[in-house]
Amino acid sequence: MRLESSRGEATRKRIIRAAADLFHQQGVSATSPNQIIEASNTGKSQFYHYFGSKEGLVHAVLQYYIQAVRDGKAFVQFDVESWEGLEEWFHAQARLQERYSMTRGCPFGTIANEVTAYDELPRQDLVLLFEVVRNKLAAFFLREKTQGHLLSTADENALADFCIAVIQGGMLMGKTRRDGNTVDGVIDQALAYLQSLRRKA
Amino acid sequence: MRLESSRGEATRKRIIRAAADLFHQQGVSATSPNQIIEASNTGKSQFYHYFGSKEGLVHAVLQYYIQAVRDGKAFVQFDVESWEGLEEWFHAQARLQERYSMTRGCPFGTIANEVTAYDELPRQDLVLLFEVVRNKLAAFFLREKTQGHLLSTADENALADFCIAVIQGGMLMGKTRRDGNTVDGVIDQALAYLQSLRRKA
Repeated sequence: MRLESSRGEATRKRIIRAAADLFHQQGVSATSPNQIIEASNTGKSQFYHYFGSKEGLVHAVLQYYIQAVRDGKAFVQFDVESWEGLEEWFHAQARLQERYSMTRGCPFGTIANEVTAYDELPRQDLVLLFEVVRNKLAAFFLREKTQGHLLSTADENALADFCIAVIQGGMLMGKTRRDGNTVDGVIDQALAYLQSLRRKA
Repeated sequence: MRLESSRGEATRKRIIRAAADLFHQQGVSATSPNQIIEASNTGKSQFYHYFGSKEGLVHAVLQYYIQAVRDGKAFVQFDVESWEGLEEWFHAQARLQERYSMTRGCPFGTIANEVTAYDELPRQDLVLLFEVVRNKLAAFFLREKTQGHLLSTADENALADFCIAVIQGGMLMGKTRRDGNTVDGVIDQALAYLQSLRRKA
């Protein structure tokens, strides 16, 4: 029994990972259940048994991302502890893009872009995903502010949103141009701004 | 003959506008030729006569956007003449999003997000579109720098890319959260940075 259910869990995870990769590569709308079934080397009955529909799988992929960010096991370290860590957070995402020869954007943003007025469940998943990311970045800025290392007028949540927006937009432009320098240049501007808010002890 | 061809041109434009609206609302992949034909109140034969395929129509929509930006007839004024004009450029895009109850992102970015490794023609269209936008914004920063109103070390192209990235990312987050305050907050941070580079005469 135990073996059976852990095998089921492995199959479920394999489908989620294959779907996440295809959504990242080509988007949600462009990905069919058959493509996911083939890429994950599973069967149609398993796909529908575990997820019910493509919508159910999109939800599962986003929940998987949320858990990975919470657990510090995502493709990027979201728990920022220092200014070097903040730089690393930006650059790790640019490196992820390089790994795919600049043909993909942010895995979260690619899905978020396709959300329409009718997709309330994935939208809520994405709101939560961005919230978890925002809170982790904001915690860094709040600590810096509390210790007097950041301007006392700085709004930690606004700065965290700014970081997310810059990396989303930068990766979108980098993917369009297939050019890593675009992303790096945008990150440099954002870091110059954030550094300008620092207070030297 | 004259009437005939101007009627043809009107039909062609009607299809382009209907497609641009549907792509903006739900993305390219999620939009079928039949939806465009219905929304534009045209026929299948006209659709294929003018555009050959959905790919041909995506190309036409992007060329239409490029021309609109060049001609100063886009939904936003890209010819920035002053710092007030720059603020207006940011806020006009946030207002466009409000007009759709925060359910849509940037019309250019929504298409750019769907570009994959295999979509070379729309990608080139988008590269040109972002180039035209970038050059218009960069011209403002260059004039300011030349007149001594902006730090001489500022890179006008990098600043222009930064503006585009911020608005792309901000609108993506605003659409996800259905929240205009997110976009406004991100714009405020970007403007605070840009203003910090000004040199008072």
